[in-house]
Amino acid sequence: MESIPNVLAERYASASMCAIWSPRGKILLEREFWIAVLKAQDELGLSVPEGAVEAYQAVIEQVDLESIRQREQITRHDVKARLEEFCDLAGHQVLHRGMTSRDLTENVEQLQVFRALELIREKVAATLIALSRRAEESKSLPITARTHNVAAQLTTYGKRLAMFGEDMLHAFTKLDQILATYPARGLKGAVGTQTDQLRLFDGDTSKTAELDAKVGAHLGLPASLDCPGQVYPRSLDFEVVSALFQLACGPASLAKTLRLMAGHELASEGFAKGQTGSSAMPHKMNSRSCERVNGFHHLLRGYVTIAGELAGDQWNEGDVSCSVVRRVVLPDAFFALDGLLETFLTILGQMEVYPEMTAAENARYLPFLSTTAFLMEAVKSGVGREVAHAAIKEHALATVRDLRTAKIKENDLLDRLAGDERLGISREDLAVVLDRAAGETGAAVEQVNRFAGRVGELAKRFPAAADYKPGTIL
Amino acid sequence: MESIPNVLAERYASASMCAIWSPRGKILLEREFWIAVLKAQDELGLSVPEGAVEAYQAVIEQVDLESIRQREQITRHDVKARLEEFCDLAGHQVLHRGMTSRDLTENVEQLQVFRALELIREKVAATLIALSRRAEESKSLPITARTHNVAAQLTTYGKRLAMFGEDMLHAFTKLDQILATYPARGLKGAVGTQTDQLRLFDGDTSKTAELDAKVGAHLGLPASLDCPGQVYPRSLDFEVVSALFQLACGPASLAKTLRLMAGHELASEGFAKGQTGSSAMPHKMNSRSCERVNGFHHLLRGYVTIAGELAGDQWNEGDVSCSVVRRVVLPDAFFALDGLLETFLTILGQMEVYPEMTAAENARYLPFLSTTAFLMEAVKSGVGREVAHAAIKEHALATVRDLRTAKIKENDLLDRLAGDERLGISREDLAVVLDRAAGETGAAVEQVNRFAGRVGELAKRFPAAADYKPGTIL
Amino acid sequence: MESIPNVLAERYASASMCAIWSPRGKILLEREFWIAVLKAQDELGLSVPEGAVEAYQAVIEQVDLESIRQREQITRHDVKARLEEFCDLAGHQVLHRGMTSRDLTENVEQLQVFRALELIREKVAATLIALSRRAEESKSLPITARTHNVAAQLTTYGKRLAMFGEDMLHAFTKLDQILATYPARGLKGAVGTQTDQLRLFDGDTSKTAELDAKVGAHLGLPASLDCPGQVYPRSLDFEVVSALFQLACGPASLAKTLRLMAGHELASEGFAKGQTGSSAMPHKMNSRSCERVNGFHHLLRGYVTIAGELAGDQWNEGDVSCSVVRRVVLPDAFFALDGLLETFLTILGQMEVYPEMTAAENARYLPFLSTTAFLMEAVKSGVGREVAHAAIKEHALATVRDLRTAKIKENDLLDRLAGDERLGISREDLAVVLDRAAGETGAAVEQVNRFAGRVGELAKRFPAAADYKPGTIL
Amino acid sequence: MESIPNVLAERYASASMCAIWSPRGKILLEREFWIAVLKAQDELGLSVPEGAVEAYQAVIEQVDLESIRQREQITRHDVKARLEEFCDLAGHQVLHRGMTSRDLTENVEQLQVFRALELIREKVAATLIALSRRAEESKSLPITARTHNVAAQLTTYGKRLAMFGEDMLHAFTKLDQILATYPARGLKGAVGTQTDQLRLFDGDTSKTAELDAKVGAHLGLPASLDCPGQVYPRSLDFEVVSALFQLACGPASLAKTLRLMAGHELASEGFAKGQTGSSAMPHKMNSRSCERVNGFHHLLRGYVTIAGELAGDQWNEGDVSCSVVRRVVLPDAFFALDGLLETFLTILGQMEVYPEMTAAENARYLPFLSTTAFLMEAVKSGVGREVAHAAIKEHALATVRDLRTAKIKENDLLDRLAGDERLGISREDLAVVLDRAAGETGAAVEQVNRFAGRVGELAKRFPAAADYKPGTIL
Repeated sequence: MESIPNVLAERYASASMCAIWSPRGKILLEREFWIAVLKAQDELGLSVPEGAVEAYQAVIEQVDLESIRQREQITRHDVKARLEEFCDLAGHQVLHRGMTSRDLTENVEQLQVFRALELIREKVAATLIALSRRAEESKSLPITARTHNVAAQLTTYGKRLAMFGEDMLHAFTKLDQILATYPARGLKGAVGTQTDQLRLFDGDTSKTAELDAKVGAHLGLPASLDCPGQVYPRSLDFEVVSALFQLACGPASLAKTLRLMAGHELASEGFAKGQTGSSAMPHKMNSRSCERVNGFHHLLRGYVTIAGELAGDQWNEGDVSCSVVRRVVLPDAFFALDGLLETFLTILGQMEVYPEMTAAENARYLPFLSTTAFLMEAVKSGVGREVAHAAIKEHALATVRDLRTAKIKENDLLDRLAGDERLGISREDLAVVLDRAAGETGAAVEQVNRFAGRVGELAKRFPAAADYKPGTIL
Repeated sequence: MESIPNVLAERYASASMCAIWSPRGKILLEREFWIAVLKAQDELGLSVPEGAVEAYQAVIEQVDLESIRQREQITRHDVKARLEEFCDLAGHQVLHRGMTSRDLTENVEQLQVFRALELIREKVAATLIALSRRAEESKSLPITARTHNVAAQLTTYGKRLAMFGEDMLHAFTKLDQILATYPARGLKGAVGTQTDQLRLFDGDTSKTAELDAKVGAHLGLPASLDCPGQVYPRSLDFEVVSALFQLACGPASLAKTLRLMAGHELASEGFAKGQTGSSAMPHKMNSRSCERVNGFHHLLRGYVTIAGELAGDQWNEGDVSCSVVRRVVLPDAFFALDGLLETFLTILGQMEVYPEMTAAENARYLPFLSTTAFLMEAVKSGVGREVAHAAIKEHALATVRDLRTAKIKENDLLDRLAGDERLGISREDLAVVLDRAAGETGAAVEQVNRFAGRVGELAKRFPAAADYKPGTIL
Repeated sequence: MESIPNVLAERYASASMCAIWSPRGKILLEREFWIAVLKAQDELGLSVPEGAVEAYQAVIEQVDLESIRQREQITRHDVKARLEEFCDLAGHQVLHRGMTSRDLTENVEQLQVFRALELIREKVAATLIALSRRAEESKSLPITARTHNVAAQLTTYGKRLAMFGEDMLHAFTKLDQILATYPARGLKGAVGTQTDQLRLFDGDTSKTAELDAKVGAHLGLPASLDCPGQVYPRSLDFEVVSALFQLACGPASLAKTLRLMAGHELASEGFAKGQTGSSAMPHKMNSRSCERVNGFHHLLRGYVTIAGELAGDQWNEGDVSCSVVRRVVLPDAFFALDGLLETFLTILGQMEVYPEMTAAENARYLPFLSTTAFLMEAVKSGVGREVAHAAIKEHALATVRDLRTAKIKENDLLDRLAGDERLGISREDLAVVLDRAAGETGAAVEQVNRFAGRVGELAKRFPAAADYKPGTIL
Repeated sequence: MESIPNVLAERYASASMCAIWSPRGKILLEREFWIAVLKAQDELGLSVPEGAVEAYQAVIEQVDLESIRQREQITRHDVKARLEEFCDLAGHQVLHRGMTSRDLTENVEQLQVFRALELIREKVAATLIALSRRAEESKSLPITARTHNVAAQLTTYGKRLAMFGEDMLHAFTKLDQILATYPARGLKGAVGTQTDQLRLFDGDTSKTAELDAKVGAHLGLPASLDCPGQVYPRSLDFEVVSALFQLACGPASLAKTLRLMAGHELASEGFAKGQTGSSAMPHKMNSRSCERVNGFHHLLRGYVTIAGELAGDQWNEGDVSCSVVRRVVLPDAFFALDGLLETFLTILGQMEVYPEMTAAENARYLPFLSTTAFLMEAVKSGVGREVAHAAIKEHALATVRDLRTAKIKENDLLDRLAGDERLGISREDLAVVLDRAAGETGAAVEQVNRFAGRVGELAKRFPAAADYKPGTIL
């Protein structure tokens, strides 16, 4: 049969993320776990042959996937195949005592999840730092904010970036909380009552408690479950995947907005160094990476649905109807977010904004956005409110009409207003009003500063994150 | 046009939850919010006519939905219709100054969400307390644990309940965290820069900051956003709905397991007082309420998907493509979880377990579950391991076969083993082994105690919860 | 408790759709069904008292929801409550013989689905006709086609509309197929074996077959199931809801594209007669209706997920864990698509395109889109290919740069090329090439004609559809 | 980086399905497509060098993935990399004339979809045939039908199987319809107007029409789109994936029901030849394959959601935000259904029912299911209806109570009724009534016959399907 790679891992995810989820990576974690249990059992008085621990440790890196595959064809049991392989390599048969398959696989899979979450956290910190830098450097650049995709008021480009950054920053707190509370299933036996380990220790609950504690220390997870069944509650998987999705939302909105801005030539996601646009069509800077960010976000939304199907569907102490689902959805969700972050970091490194274009857009819309200010100016200078309102409305509508029918190329509302005797405001005074409006970006700069301040605290927690460089993307 | 009720609200949700989301309920919150802004503006020096605040307050309860509907038909703008109605009732026109529609609706909708979350938290606490009581009262009742829906080992009924309770308890911590961090959008203006309020206060940012703080205090939310656009990030809606779903998972698994147990007549969800089974079919105690719990859980899973579609899909500073979606998904998700909890609390109050039936099931399977113990007994008494293993396997397979072909009605493995000279163990000795096994429920009792201990701490935080009684369900 | 309306029904769906799903509407269908069964039983020889059928028919319209509600509070059984109400009104007790609740509700709900599908089909036909008209009237208007949201090549506006229309037209064939194959469950009894009706007719299978046929004729569905259990397979619900979603996809893409075009002021969704833009901001024609179409589409996507949860989850002959889910998802999915179509038809009636704006956009990009043509022209006139390519690329890149830095306001590539001696092509010749390109819309017109032809055939099948007018939308 | 396989392809899907979606498989389809276009262009008069077609054909099988990967690293364009590789192998540069990337990839991906659908259709036919055989062989075996997971009435095992089979059979008609109407995008150029090919043929639309027809003939799809943009409407992907999901629903319900039956030891999914249960726990025949079927079904439900996100989200003439999503969801959906069918066919080959156990279950519940018949018998023999009803109810309730409290092991309702003087029916007469009831399976047998008849017609259309043998599963 032809080999078919996992496309998310192969094309988009980073090497570190792949190492956690690769067949070899999982086997290494399993072997470490088995040895940790063996050591703990030894320390607690179960007889373990001299040299056995060392023998296992000596062969831990000898992972032969093909040999294991052949064993599974015979045993029809994947854990058994991997156990026999390891034992044969070490020349001992003392692993897995009092353990069921799930005692191994549940904990190791949780470990994969936890380490992958830690990797994601570091990368999200890097992303927030890069985004915050971008927001700060453009915090005073006025752009036309849009609601309903139509010009509404001024804001600044930095504020727009911070807006999406704050979305991600909030999601970060959720990720943090999971990493602070994620509970391990532990060595709880076939149905969760620890009966199997208790038998080994002749019912001595203090010893099984100590064993569980030692194993927990090896895993390094922040909490442990008291009452699981054969499996840990699958709502934990849902919690993790929905947190991954939530982290993707800020980047997805920013990517979508950048695609919109690129359509107006206000900004672009940029090019890799040395890369240029198509010579045939130099204007065509396609937002391929932004589109890809949106694609990953779509996938993650679907993975939330899939992880949701596992949760709240437990029969008695558990079964394996979730098995094939988890084999797919856990790694793929992490690969997707990892690929998204790599891509998004690349965008943050390369994206460009065109200040002359944003200024031109502002100029086009600012007169319309300032009609209230003109009205106030007219009223201040003694014109009746009703009269002024009627006059301004008349000219504004006419200007829109003439722009849309290309009678005029630029917004000449000021000239029209200046020429209307009903209003009696000079072109100069109108221009003063407009100039004032052109700088009116409200609290945008301070808002960016606050965002940057919060990211700054994060940067202290994750000192290496500021220097993270994404891999080369396709 | 015929009136069509919201079926979740009408049939399943509690009156308190409906009050939050009803048209009238929302209008009351809006009016309170408008008045809070007006008061704050007054205190900060904006001119507010003498008696205006009081005039609004005097008519706050006069909600005439039909009159508002007629206004909306004319204005085509729902906020304007409600504003005009309120102002006409009060005889003043000073509300909504420097506010955009979203300054009103975003905050009020967040308030609905927050209050509904608080209501849910109280009810989840009540649920956990009731579930913990049930777990404690049956913590020593041995039942046959099943994996793959097949008998696997003993556990206790209380442990099984605690297992699902721990799922819900973990979800509770997530709900708690949301209630501790949920950030209000605040009065941020048309595109989020506070430009509109700054204009009112002549650019005095200290005053707008104070205004925002006063409004925040009125809302009572634990945090506020620094950098929103026209809207708050819709990932917050996703976060809320996914937390609601996660809370439903423990009850859903328990309900599903109770349906399975009812199929074996081991337990039932019980009846309301005075209710009896159908006289024609007295055995037919349908798990209708458990099925309904599973139905609500399905719905919530779908609402997660829908809320997920809103998140990460923002164009620029925002638009209203999410409007109709949020009008449906936010109330319906809360109604569904509220209905689920009402139903589930009813089940917790009425459900029954049949100890004689669980004992009979244990008796049927225990000999099979004890073959390892028999083997050890034989080896201890001097029989060769291989011989003993072969003999036990032979008899076990024959017993299964005879049970499945109805040659025998009860598991007679002990008799067969006692009659086999190869093993040389007496019927009495075998019975001793079996008796020991019959009590072997591992750490189940202690696990329940730990669960009850954690719920006990919760009960202290929510003293009223222990006495909560669900409404009568259909 | 405060009454909470179904927001989709109340604000968006048409009266005809609401009539199908309203409590009263369902009760009418149920009563008709009961009478149809009674008549059929009478004709097949079961004793039915003289005048009973007429007595039921005489009171069929007397629907008192409050009275039924009170009965349900006592009986705790919704079907029983409605049956007793009807029988008391008629003064007879002969309905529902040999029937179980599901014999009633399954068939009636299928009837609701089927009639709602028929209503949708008529409205989709109306939509396609309106869309085809729009496509034809603008089939020759050249616009700049965009890929990756960036100018790519010319197309026509009519072709763009037809593109989305073809999506909907394809979905229409699926709807048609469902309406041609949708199978009724029929009177199959408590577990689907017809045992209950067979008992009534003393095991005479010819009579039950005739009864089922008569009932089927009353329902008017195109097929019937042979082997259902207590319920019809819920995959049918999924099939229906996924077809509704698919019908929404063409409109959703068109609405999204119109929102993009509105952002460039190339087109707008228009206004209702008499309505104008905000006087303060006359340029601000928000695409609220298009956004709403996208909102409905989002909802429908979620309803597909929810309907999917019902399918393939049957335990044995069935249960009611789907009950609450179907009470919500079936009507809401139909309301959502109905609301979408009403809104979309309104857009099709009002939307505008601004030819001068599209022409200006074409002018901006056409020189870039024509570089290949310039190259061919240069080569034809004897310039070396390499030389020409380098020269054109140089000027194109410079022009893009100058446009983005606002050094120039209009694309002057032609002037630059004309001024370059390496190329030796006159401004006039270049203009000829550009003019030719300006009309190069490929097969767009013929493609629209083909689409219109296919819709024309549909129009013949649904003669009333061409005149359908959507209701007034909020 | 460590290689990570696609787990669905590697562990579960068949070799034929993998061949369609493998990197190599896709490249072969692409090369065939390029050659088909080249040939057609040659026939229509474009100059093609002598021997070029043959040169390409000669190297078509030389697929070097690593070489292509290296080219992509340089070009950053996957299609260009594959084109250069092929051209270098053939020593010609005449492929891809007038084509854009999407002219290639859209059509080739549709071809993958179509061929995968054909493969699925054949396998679904095989599944229906195998299921029909199973239904027929057990069509007369009475079992206790359950509603709400509680005994409700008799049915037959064959009827139960046919019930789920009919679900799948209905889904088959939808698959059939897609295979009869699936439209190819064809060679429509960069934005769908065929401009690119028209340029090649100097605007001769008859030639481009002929070209499109020739290419369509090569593809072999049943229809073609008139008006696509850069891409075909993604609602087609949704249509396909939702059809795959619908096909999984019947098997999923059957698998779930078999898991329930296994819990009652009424049936099991069986073992592979030579395989036996665990010797330690011979009763433990875990329904692992059924659980896996349910897992695949869950995944497919999620893929429907993901495919739904692509549909109705087109911007203008298209973009690639769907690219990464489709790279994952299309193959994975097909792998999941293919794996499900392989697993399900294995179950159909091995599953067992235990007639003595089903008989015992019938015996336990039949007296309860027959109370109405007893009542009629009593009334017939002259007992007053009220008296008889009261007596029967009293005994039935007592019997249930005694069974649930293990006072009795077997249902002794008949003895109790026989001993009650109020009823005056003999034990013999009661037994006659019960015997009659024991055979009362309604129209079950005829229903199975009808199902088998419909599958029989399918078997004629797909003569090879009856002999299809699934591969060995893990």
